Amino acid sequence: MKPDPAAFARLLCGYCLDAQPGQQVVVRSTTLAAPLLLAVQCELLERGAWPLLRTELPGAAEQWWDAASDRHLDGFAAAELAEAEQTDASLSIQAPENTTALAGVDPARMARAARARAPLREAAMRRRWCGTLWPTPAGAQRAGMGTGEFSDFVRRATFLDRDDPAAAWSELRALQERLIERLARACELRIEAPGTDLRLNVAGRTWVNSDGRRNMPSGEVFTGPLEDSAEGRIRFTVPSSPSGVEVSGIELEFRAGRVVDARAERGHGYLLATLDTDPGARLLGEIGIGTNTGIDRPTGAILFDEKIGGTVHLALGRSYPETGGTNESAVHWDMICDLRAGGRLSADGEVIQQDGVVRP
Amino acid sequence: MKPDPAAFARLLCGYCLDAQPGQQVVVRSTTLAAPLLLAVQCELLERGAWPLLRTELPGAAEQWWDAASDRHLDGFAAAELAEAEQTDASLSIQAPENTTALAGVDPARMARAARARAPLREAAMRRRWCGTLWPTPAGAQRAGMGTGEFSDFVRRATFLDRDDPAAAWSELRALQERLIERLARACELRIEAPGTDLRLNVAGRTWVNSDGRRNMPSGEVFTGPLEDSAEGRIRFTVPSSPSGVEVSGIELEFRAGRVVDARAERGHGYLLATLDTDPGARLLGEIGIGTNTGIDRPTGAILFDEKIGGTVHLALGRSYPETGGTNESAVHWDMICDLRAGGRLSADGEVIQQDGVVRP
Repeated sequence: MKPDPAAFARLLCGYCLDAQPGQQVVVRSTTLAAPLLLAVQCELLERGAWPLLRTELPGAAEQWWDAASDRHLDGFAAAELAEAEQTDASLSIQAPENTTALAGVDPARMARAARARAPLREAAMRRRWCGTLWPTPAGAQRAGMGTGEFSDFVRRATFLDRDDPAAAWSELRALQERLIERLARACELRIEAPGTDLRLNVAGRTWVNSDGRRNMPSGEVFTGPLEDSAEGRIRFTVPSSPSGVEVSGIELEFRAGRVVDARAERGHGYLLATLDTDPGARLLGEIGIGTNTGIDRPTGAILFDEKIGGTVHLALGRSYPETGGTNESAVHWDMICDLRAGGRLSADGEVIQQDGVVRP
Repeated sequence: MKPDPAAFARLLCGYCLDAQPGQQVVVRSTTLAAPLLLAVQCELLERGAWPLLRTELPGAAEQWWDAASDRHLDGFAAAELAEAEQTDASLSIQAPENTTALAGVDPARMARAARARAPLREAAMRRRWCGTLWPTPAGAQRAGMGTGEFSDFVRRATFLDRDDPAAAWSELRALQERLIERLARACELRIEAPGTDLRLNVAGRTWVNSDGRRNMPSGEVFTGPLEDSAEGRIRFTVPSSPSGVEVSGIELEFRAGRVVDARAERGHGYLLATLDTDPGARLLGEIGIGTNTGIDRPTGAILFDEKIGGTVHLALGRSYPETGGTNESAVHWDMICDLRAGGRLSADGEVIQQDGVVRP
């Protein structure tokens, strides 16, 4: 089986979560990830930790949204918050049976539930956490691949094809650290590509080295740009699928940080509606640079796509407080610009990345 | 599908649990019960309650026992106790993939874990709870039936073949109430059948009307006999399978309440080892009378077998405090004596049940 469940579980419980004896670790996925879930349970038990498996049945989420009343949208079970507060770590494994299962749910209902469940998210974020993906036929279909081919892809993306995956992640962390040393000195970032010429200010902001311990796979460095700094145009060349809605060919124009013009070849209405969610939805919350060369093409899973080595991504909406970013929004929508076919990222005039390759 | 998942869910969430708006209900089963689990989630949401599904993967329990260390046998995750204390009700649905999955686990390890987990059991018992069974191929195999035939059997056992299952259960409750009125006046019970002549004293003890709200199906009345009262011999004609070990042809001899002689045609060693678990394991903790005529034959599931209309069962070990019984033990082993082929239960000389039929 690929990726090997036991090796994957070792990477997740060791490198990512560093699970210790006596720790309580909540593990969430669907029944489709059964081989990995069993391997994670075994690995956690061998480490002396307490695995708490929360396995979702196919169809359960779709039915929940179908049957949920106002009460369910505007609150949550107190036991869920208690669990988040009283356990030590959580591992979420995407393993969808149908990646568009929730495409028919009213986005307003989803936003309402997301607001009500904010305390759950915040409590989970205060613990150690990791998010990853197990290859399923639905995930492969979203990527336009055979299931075996997609499984191989996931194996390469997570470095599970390397002799020592944890060591390979540590190497990438060191490489990213050197990149951050250069970026941390910069004020103005500029992205240039066909249809794209955008300037941002990142002076004083903190760059985060995303080394696979929270997202597996990762391979990016990111920060939050100054909220009023974005000027110019950008064309995002990689489609994205927020909540299962495919949006592609997005072009945005920024003035003093705000989106003043927006279009999409596909999903135009969804894009405009999202921009109107709240005032923060028109501002940038993140700029990230993908460094994972094990991820060589888009698959429709943002967990992978934003890490493609040779891409840059911007997120509309909420920024990550640890970057120094201050934008608040219910939205956080990552949009990816592939620079490999011709493009440049520069910092205060120094070329950082040319045609997808980091310049020394 | 039989039983109909929606009708079963209505019976469980309504008649059994009486789930109220805002209540948090933990639902435990395996993935094999998926149709019933989804129906229960839907029913709870429609009642305004919070379903908390805890779905076990096939093989997960077997692997847990395989990989668990001393730490795991001698404790539990604190989050499990918090969940039991902070939620309002629990529903446990047996749906085994293999009814003998744990047959290879050392009984001493299981007893050790059972002792350590006593606080979890006690916390769960303080809430409203219900235990039931969903028909699986493994459950059918244990019963020696086809899966469809077993599903029909479960449907009849739970009264889901009736027009109004909840009303049928209420009728049985009334019938059992009249039986209890007669039994509550009695001091000495006597069971007579080929190979059996046993006397017990139940003076001052409380009879419980088991009407399907805690066990679905139920259909029994039970109490705890005076701990030193059992005198005589009894032959149990229905096999039982504690922890997946089949034991049949059990004969016990009692003096002053204690088992002084024991044999079994099959599982003799297991029987003797269990009697030596602790001092309470040689005393009776329960006498029950099965009244469910929808259950017409043994299936190897104690949930059904002890309710067969026309049988009497005794349990070695722990008594239920609500009966007034005081016996303590890690053991509670129900053993069933079928009186339908010829036998009698009398109370202070008055015949209560003759050849499996309750006498008016």
